[in-house]
Amino acid sequence: MKTQPIPQRVKDIRRRLREKGIDCLILTKAVDVTYVTAFRGEDSWAAITPNAVYLITDSRYIEQARKECVRTSFVQRTGPITLATAQFVKRLKSDAVAIDKAVSLAAYQALRKGLRAPLKGVSGITEELRNVKDATELARIKKAAELSAKALARATAFFKPGICESELAGIVDLEIRRLGCKPGFETIVAFGPNASRPHHQPGARKLRKTDTILIDFGARYDGYTADITRCFVVGKPSAAYRRACEVTARSQAAAIAAARAGAKLRDVDEAARKVVRDSGFPVYGYGTGHGIGLEIHEDPFLRPESKGTLQAGQILTIEPGVYIPGKLGVRIEDDILITENGCQILTGACPHLRF
Amino acid sequence: MKTQPIPQRVKDIRRRLREKGIDCLILTKAVDVTYVTAFRGEDSWAAITPNAVYLITDSRYIEQARKECVRTSFVQRTGPITLATAQFVKRLKSDAVAIDKAVSLAAYQALRKGLRAPLKGVSGITEELRNVKDATELARIKKAAELSAKALARATAFFKPGICESELAGIVDLEIRRLGCKPGFETIVAFGPNASRPHHQPGARKLRKTDTILIDFGARYDGYTADITRCFVVGKPSAAYRRACEVTARSQAAAIAAARAGAKLRDVDEAARKVVRDSGFPVYGYGTGHGIGLEIHEDPFLRPESKGTLQAGQILTIEPGVYIPGKLGVRIEDDILITENGCQILTGACPHLRF
Repeated sequence: MKTQPIPQRVKDIRRRLREKGIDCLILTKAVDVTYVTAFRGEDSWAAITPNAVYLITDSRYIEQARKECVRTSFVQRTGPITLATAQFVKRLKSDAVAIDKAVSLAAYQALRKGLRAPLKGVSGITEELRNVKDATELARIKKAAELSAKALARATAFFKPGICESELAGIVDLEIRRLGCKPGFETIVAFGPNASRPHHQPGARKLRKTDTILIDFGARYDGYTADITRCFVVGKPSAAYRRACEVTARSQAAAIAAARAGAKLRDVDEAARKVVRDSGFPVYGYGTGHGIGLEIHEDPFLRPESKGTLQAGQILTIEPGVYIPGKLGVRIEDDILITENGCQILTGACPHLRF
Repeated sequence: MKTQPIPQRVKDIRRRLREKGIDCLILTKAVDVTYVTAFRGEDSWAAITPNAVYLITDSRYIEQARKECVRTSFVQRTGPITLATAQFVKRLKSDAVAIDKAVSLAAYQALRKGLRAPLKGVSGITEELRNVKDATELARIKKAAELSAKALARATAFFKPGICESELAGIVDLEIRRLGCKPGFETIVAFGPNASRPHHQPGARKLRKTDTILIDFGARYDGYTADITRCFVVGKPSAAYRRACEVTARSQAAAIAAARAGAKLRDVDEAARKVVRDSGFPVYGYGTGHGIGLEIHEDPFLRPESKGTLQAGQILTIEPGVYIPGKLGVRIEDDILITENGCQILTGACPHLRF
């Protein structure tokens, strides 16, 4: 676990820049800017040099930046951000300037034109660091998980026949807000067979007297989001649904048992996938898990084709499921912290299906 | 007002491509893909040639694509979207391939590498078309405005001392969901002096017995979002607040009176700005309005530095305000349709401040 987050993060980035012979790195993605400055506003870029971290922002955000930023110098722009960044970077007289490739082609071309110098595109520098969490990040995700669990527990009071999916999604979001957070992403609520589409959009479908409920949601706390899926039943579930739940639970347990520092990403994916395959149910068509942090989907990704291994300090979802189109859908999703010898479940307090 | 939306849109784009000598245009931005195919899923690109419109998507979305798309051919990918697009476009044997510059530098470079041919970046083609709405788009925005008004009317029942900003934002969102829509963007609720920050994030501040409320929100209906701001008071407002409301209302009325096809964008901006300036209040630091459509902020933008004129069929916000840091904030925002002789207010049914 790393300490002193911002200075340590910048130090780690500078080491990578030295290895690549880069004097100045421009970051344009909001989560990257937050990661190196702690700034939470929009329309702002960061530049990292051997001696300083700069935030290029405008009058709307300068007050917020002064309050939020850690060890950051400010460049207050008036015109377009590409032009302001080019003018500022030219004054630095850096020999080798690079930009993260998440930038749009339009902004890249405008910046290069303004710089009148080569501008290298680089990728992976912040992603490689961001995927291993420091103590501050872990604490925020734990808090997000705790508040998500509370919000869902309160929302279960609204599991009553007649409520529609979209309304229940609104109730979950409202309970999250009542706890002082925001929804970290668009809450998914799917009743009955609608749950067979993993990315179902909550709609007008009403809850019946005998029905199933899938909820995929998460509170965002201080920039970090938990990502949890739970399934519930109203009335007596079908034998097929019970079996799908049982297989999904075993599948998830297998991946959690396989997850530790050094384990191959694809082996952890396969551990979960094998249980579903062996059960005779169709095998889900997405990755078993993904990293969570400032982004809701980030490295590492647990997929059959993934390369690489897990590292201590990574936090990721484990979310296998069983989906039978037009019939049923079950997914169980928890967030785990990878440790040297195994993993720790961060979302265990979240209410579960009870038959 | 244009008719037969998708075929007409594609025809208009093809005319522009011929003028620019482009045989194949690749669109990567989700709203652009929706605009030319009607597809609403994610992770999918579109390619427009003189004879066809293609959607490059994957197994997760193919069922949805078949249901939603209009006059579209499908390319089902398995690997990365850049590689699949490159392979597909190579088979077309187009002489001049272009891509919208909204693409990330990473995707652009991967695509160019896969194509082994020049790949021109272009901008503005879809934006120029999207900013003038057709009958289908107008109908959706009208419906979004109507449902937004209903949702806010219901939420006013919760204007009670003790509720916090974040919770009231959740209530507004829930009422939107109860009407079968989704919030089109993050609802802003600001009590008292918090409203002096135009982009205030709703927080733990509780409503007092004598207080002011600013709500900036909008329902999304069928992909199109209304964007409305209303101010309310609890108890008796201060004389300064009353005066700020009166000036803001006059400022907005001045811009609405100036808005018609052919009016200069900056003149409409100035019409509103002048009223605030003449009142002696500080002049707001953002543009007086922006287009709304598939994006919540799109062309045209009403700013002091804007070039160009309004066109019939554009739909935009008019949202001046008065902000005194630490004291008060007032903004009134309505959505208007530009016509040949003036404009039509689409959000007039939304409840207003009553003293």
